[in-house]
This record gives sequence, structure tokens and C-alpha cells, in this order.
Amino acid sequence: MTASAQRRPRTPDEIVAGVLRGDRRAVARAISLLEDAAPAAAPIIRDLWPHTGRAASVGLTGPPGVGKSTLAASLVTHLRRSETTVGVLTVDPSSPFTHGALLGDRIRLAEHFLDPGVYIRSMGSRGHLGGLAEATFLALHVLDASGRDVILVETVGVGQSEIEVASVVDVVVLVLQPGSGDAVQALKAGVMEIPDVLCINKRDHPEAKAMRSALRHALSLAPPGERPLVVETDARAGDGIDDLWAAIGERRAGLGPDGLTARRRSNLEREVRTVAIARATTVVERTLAERGPELVGRLGRHETDPLAAVAELYDAAFERRPGDE
Amino acid sequence: MTASAQRRPRTPDEIVAGVLRGDRRAVARAISLLEDAAPAAAPIIRDLWPHTGRAASVGLTGPPGVGKSTLAASLVTHLRRSETTVGVLTVDPSSPFTHGALLGDRIRLAEHFLDPGVYIRSMGSRGHLGGLAEATFLALHVLDASGRDVILVETVGVGQSEIEVASVVDVVVLVLQPGSGDAVQALKAGVMEIPDVLCINKRDHPEAKAMRSALRHALSLAPPGERPLVVETDARAGDGIDDLWAAIGERRAGLGPDGLTARRRSNLEREVRTVAIARATTVVERTLAERGPELVGRLGRHETDPLAAVAELYDAAFERRPGDE
Repeated sequence: MTASAQRRPRTPDEIVAGVLRGDRRAVARAISLLEDAAPAAAPIIRDLWPHTGRAASVGLTGPPGVGKSTLAASLVTHLRRSETTVGVLTVDPSSPFTHGALLGDRIRLAEHFLDPGVYIRSMGSRGHLGGLAEATFLALHVLDASGRDVILVETVGVGQSEIEVASVVDVVVLVLQPGSGDAVQALKAGVMEIPDVLCINKRDHPEAKAMRSALRHALSLAPPGERPLVVETDARAGDGIDDLWAAIGERRAGLGPDGLTARRRSNLEREVRTVAIARATTVVERTLAERGPELVGRLGRHETDPLAAVAELYDAAFERRPGDE
Repeated sequence: MTASAQRRPRTPDEIVAGVLRGDRRAVARAISLLEDAAPAAAPIIRDLWPHTGRAASVGLTGPPGVGKSTLAASLVTHLRRSETTVGVLTVDPSSPFTHGALLGDRIRLAEHFLDPGVYIRSMGSRGHLGGLAEATFLALHVLDASGRDVILVETVGVGQSEIEVASVVDVVVLVLQPGSGDAVQALKAGVMEIPDVLCINKRDHPEAKAMRSALRHALSLAPPGERPLVVETDARAGDGIDDLWAAIGERRAGLGPDGLTARRRSNLEREVRTVAIARATTVVERTLAERGPELVGRLGRHETDPLAAVAELYDAAFERRPGDE
């Protein structure tokens, strides 16, 4: 370990240099600054950005309790056999009160905490979902610039979620388990996006057969070009993980260089949109926290009406004078 | 039928007078203007607003395919026996391509189309979800002012949805069916809000027993004061509908006058927030549609970075000069 790696990086320049060297503390510091939306975040992202684009990013999404974290842990074990370096971002949008319910699921990841080839970071929502999305997108870029070969982003998603982060990656994996009837119905009804790879975890479950046939039916309704690869795993036993990684690789390779570039361009557009909307949302919420009770009081007394109240809130949030176009 | 009821209402004043008389064509015209965000929407809402607050509003939400529309139809039949007048808003945020998948579910509602005591309106997303939320909130106020006793709002929801409309009501009913394992997990993990009433539809399904015990376990984790009433129905056969209506009534009565006022105040705040955010979202999306390709091109050439691109998009969307605070 060099002397500079032992010193805690402090300035944006030191942090950028550290991240580019792959220094874990610099990565941790950079992500913390992004989470806090600190002023130093801007120059850090600006200087790291030209060094991104090398990592393969994979999103793992799915309903709670299907074993996404165990699957992520098994994928890490699989990747480490070939000395592939990995970054893992686990994103937890649930309320702080129920944190414990999901935490148990993440214990398996702890096996990898001491491996210098693995960097694991849990992204929690510090109050609002928008900031979480922004911090996660930016953390992905930091891990990419730090030289990780593969970045896994794991997040709870049920349907159209405000947390789009797990779909702004090279390859999206939707994890389901037998009993995930709602997700199958949501795929069928078109209210859930079709992923690149569909992973049925807990394949030895008694209801797995029913799941398979329901899924086959649901996917037969999708346009042929949009059908996902279906893989079955048992993440706890480590079974099927090589198939899963092969399917991810097949889908990524199948994009071709032009396809990957196109997808990344569309992901960037999604990222910029999501973050801009998240910021606007924060501004509206902050304004409402100040003016809400007074505004609702006037609504209750019929001194204003809902549409006028929206216009008033919007103008106050974005500092527009009433009547501006 | 009076002469004025036969003439098609045209001006905002005519529409308002028609809605207050309960004229169906005036109601339809008002909601269409709201959906189109027409300039006439503002005076219509302003003049109707003081006449709202009498109706009982009930939201029916749940994963696709659980029978929400059939349940809504059965509730309408139940309510019409006591000559209660009803308004039904069915909200479909799914893409136009898959519309058919959900439409079959709604055929039962058609039985009520000719009953003058029932007004049914399907709210579709004309391109973006935000406009749908706004139009649905406002349609609720129009139906309320038109003198309907009960308003049912039915919408597909899986987890945290952008469409919060079904929860901005007096009483929220979450509809599940045996096999809704994902929703049960989401309740357990705290990523899905706990409803007032939980309705297990298709109660004679072979998996109903497993569902009941999974649900009991999930709900035992909720704070005692937040536990929903659980009802079982078979909407197709019309079984359990009186129990469901009784549970809805019990929860609404249980709020008490002060509780109902408090809930409506918090609903109004949510409505104003949701609509203001939806408008800001539309502005960001419109700006990105113009500038996106050029912005993403510069990102790809490393002439800008994601955080700078967000700031540029935000400033352009909200007409802020760079550097404004």
C-alpha cells in the first residue's frame, strides 16, 4: 500500500485521483459526497466522466423477498473465480422503519466485504426517493471510473417504480420466484417493462411448474424481438448462476457495439431526465412543506380551488411570477 | 327532461350549471375539458369547488387481473339496490398497445351504462401519466359536485406507483387474489402502503388458504392501529360484496368527523403536490424532447458530464439563467 493510498483523500482532485487508482476510500468518499449533494460532487463527476464506459453494468430488479441479494452474492462469487472485479450497489427505497425486513436478505453479500476485488455499497433513501436515484446513477459512474469490470445494481421494484435505476444499465435482469403471480400479470398487462433476462429463483419450489407455464403464456404475448432469456436458479445453493451469467453475457453481446452504444445513449437520456425530475420534485416538496398547511386551509375555506392552488405552488416552487408564460 | 338539459352545454357557466344539476352531458364535457387541460378547466373547477365534499370516495387498487373492475361492478349493483347514486372512474395507465389485456375485465361495468344513477368514465393516459393523475383528481371533484353519493376510483397499482389517485380518497381498498405473493411481500417489506380494507377476491381459489396465512403473517408486522380490515369476496358470483361495503363503511365511520376532515386535508395536500410534480415532469420531458439528442451527443463526446447536463436541462425547463440560486 502506498503512502498516498493511506492518507484520507480530501480535496476533489485527491478524490478523483484516488478513484482512478481504484482506491476504496476515495470511492467511498466520492459516493458520500454525491449522496449529500455536496458542492464537491460537480467537479468530481466532471473529472471522472471521461474515464467511464468500460464497466459492464447489470441491474437486478424484482419484488421483495425473491432473493435478489443472495443472487447478487452468488454472482459475485462466480465472477471472482475468474478474478473479475465487481462493484455492487444495493438500493433500498423502503421506509427506515421496515429496513430490518430486507436486511436479512443482504447477509450473504457480507461474505465479500473483505475481498479487495469487491466493492459493496448500500444506497439508502435519505428522506426522499429522488436523491436516491441521483446518488445511485452517479455512484455507478464512480465505480465505472474506478476500474471495476462489472457493476451490479440491485433494487426492489414492483411495477412502475420511481426508482428506475436498475433499468439504466447494459442488461436488466428481473428476478421472480414461484408465487410471483402479480409480476407475471403485470408483464402480461404491459404495466411492467419486459427485461433482458428473466430469472426464476427458488426453482425447486413446489409452485415452480405453475410459474413456468404462467410465464410462458405471459411472454408469448410480447413481440418476438422483446422476449427475455429465461433462466432458473437456486441462489442459496449456488445453482444455475453460471447459466444466469451466460444469459447476461449473451444479451449484452447480442446488442453488438452499435446496439450497446445506442442503449447507453438512451440510458443517459433517461438518467438526465430522472435526475432533473427528481430535483424538480424536491423543489415542489420543499415549497409545499412551507406553504402546504396555509394552502390547504384556504382550500378548505373555499378561498382557492385545487387548480389555482397547484398554479400557486408551481409558481412559488419555480420562482415564476403569476401570469408568466 | 327540461329544454336546457337537452341543449349541449358549451360555456364554462353552462357546464357548471349542468354539473350542479347532475346533467350527464355536462359532467362528460367538464371531464373532457380537464383531460385536454383546456383553458375552460380553471373556471369550471373554481366554480364547482365550493359544491364538493358530500360524496364518499373509495379507491380500489391492486395488481392487474385480480378482478377490480368486476368488484367495482358488483359494488355498483349493491349500491343501486338502495338507490345510492354512483360515479365510477376507471384509470388505466398501461400502454395503448396492451389496452386489450385489461379491457375484458371491464365488460361487467357495461351492465350499468344505461342506468342514469350510474356514471362511468374510463380515464386513459393521453401520452403521459402526469396528465392522467391531474384529470382523475379533477374528475373526482366534478362527480362530487354533480351530486353522486359514492365515487369509486379503480386503478392498477403495483407498489409505489406514479398514479397515486386511488389513495387520494376517503377509504382505500387493496384488492388481491390468491397468488398475489408479490403484493403480500411488498406489504411485509413496507414498500407498499397499508390500505384501509384488504379484499381477497376469488376466495374459492385452491391457493386461498395459503394466501390468508401469508397475509395474516405480513399484517401482524404492521402497527396495530394500521391493520386493515380483511374481507373475502367472489366478485363474479357477487359473494361477499355486502361484507366489503360494510367494511368500507366501518372504516369511513371509524374516522369520525374530525378524522375524515384531517384525511381530506392530507389528501388535498397530496393532490396539489402530485399535480404540481406532474406538471414539472411534463415541462422537463418537453424540454428533453427538444434538447435530448444534442445533450446526449455532447455527453458521449465528453463535452459535458451527467451532473452538468442535468443542471442545463433543469435551467432550460424552468427558464432559469445559469448561476441563479
